[in-house]
Amino acid sequence: VSSLRARAVSGIPELHAGDDLAALIVAATGPEQPSDDQVVAIAHTAVSKVEGAIRMLAEVQPSERALQLAAAAADAGVDHATDARAIQVALDESSEVLRAERGVLICRTHHGFVCANAGVDASNAGREDSLVLLPRDPDTSARRIRARIGDLTGATPAVLISDSFGRAWRHGQLDVCIGLAGMQPLDDWRGRTDASGMLLRATWLAVADAVAAAADLARAKDSREPVVLIDGLQRFVCDEDGPGATALLRPTVEDLFR
Amino acid sequence: VSSLRARAVSGIPELHAGDDLAALIVAATGPEQPSDDQVVAIAHTAVSKVEGAIRMLAEVQPSERALQLAAAAADAGVDHATDARAIQVALDESSEVLRAERGVLICRTHHGFVCANAGVDASNAGREDSLVLLPRDPDTSARRIRARIGDLTGATPAVLISDSFGRAWRHGQLDVCIGLAGMQPLDDWRGRTDASGMLLRATWLAVADAVAAAADLARAKDSREPVVLIDGLQRFVCDEDGPGATALLRPTVEDLFR
Repeated sequence: VSSLRARAVSGIPELHAGDDLAALIVAATGPEQPSDDQVVAIAHTAVSKVEGAIRMLAEVQPSERALQLAAAAADAGVDHATDARAIQVALDESSEVLRAERGVLICRTHHGFVCANAGVDASNAGREDSLVLLPRDPDTSARRIRARIGDLTGATPAVLISDSFGRAWRHGQLDVCIGLAGMQPLDDWRGRTDASGMLLRATWLAVADAVAAAADLARAKDSREPVVLIDGLQRFVCDEDGPGATALLRPTVEDLFR
Repeated sequence: VSSLRARAVSGIPELHAGDDLAALIVAATGPEQPSDDQVVAIAHTAVSKVEGAIRMLAEVQPSERALQLAAAAADAGVDHATDARAIQVALDESSEVLRAERGVLICRTHHGFVCANAGVDASNAGREDSLVLLPRDPDTSARRIRARIGDLTGATPAVLISDSFGRAWRHGQLDVCIGLAGMQPLDDWRGRTDASGMLLRATWLAVADAVAAAADLARAKDSREPVVLIDGLQRFVCDEDGPGATALLRPTVEDLFR
């Protein structure tokens, strides 16, 4: 019988730049250390904090464009999107702004992720005068954490880094995978057949995104539990680091909604 | 410690119009019957089949528009999207076509879901000459199945109906919730504070979609296991049926990507 199990790891302390996140995870898991066939899912804010991917608002000089966007948000009555410095930080993290309406900024980040405010987040920063960015290269972060867990324990579980993204046509946010090592991001059934022998023409499953979503269900949002251990995904876990979350990005040439 | 567990139910037989799906689920779960605090996640094809939401290709008369779209797909070399009858069925299920390019048809269904081909699916139909539609009213389907499980067992678990949707900016498909009863679809943290006391301004979690994604990880795509039981979601399960998956739909007036 197939089965999936996800459980939050308690006891990860408040994190700061330079902290050894892998060591803190290993310490917090206690005697039940991560194993080779598990996935360690980590909310990106934890990775961003230890990597120092933080901007202090006081050090941001908003551009003319950021000031205009802030004024437009104020005109639209969107009070929480009127800080031109926060908008500037989102612009700095973006290669392209897809939409800027009613205080909503939909960006393509330098990594290629399409999300609100380029993934820049005021909550969970730990202080009101700072913003948490996405890690600079989340796949590399995942590989580094995976290797370090291997050094510390002898086991190399898959490591998945997630962020909560909104969706174009649905309410609410869903955690998606933004960094990955040791697991295949996609499960390709195209050209294979289903139980009835029918060709599965389009079936190409974003398993890493499903794992990110499942992990988020195992913790409460106010619980300070950035790490979740997941069992039951042996068929997707692999020895090599694999292509990472980058493989989940649809190339802009295929984008029908620019 | 928070924990999530999902396991596929084996032994659901091949389904036909008029079958009592709730009774088949109860029979297949055996002595470990669904309980009030569980979620029963069901792949929509199972619901569509018992409801007879199937179209026979031989009975479809393609319109001029369907013939044009099929010809355009053939010109673009997209061989699997050249059956004008299948395109006609997708058009019949749509209130609006958002994009029609390179054999890809992005539709808004009559329910309001935005997805490829209006959710019409050739695979899992069980026969090559038929197509599976989405259930006509998946929230009502979920409520009916929930009530019937209650009649049979005395327990009323939440019932969630899912389909696999592609995403605008990411590769692969992810299961999302299209029908729901007995569980809150969204978890609203807006205005509440995180562990650091910071205001969670935008945090509004699409928990029903996360559950759909998690459920799909508990089965293999060729395993004929449309039903997955999920534990650990007590905080989202409720006595009343609730607003259903309809509450997950972003109104078109807020749609930035029409």
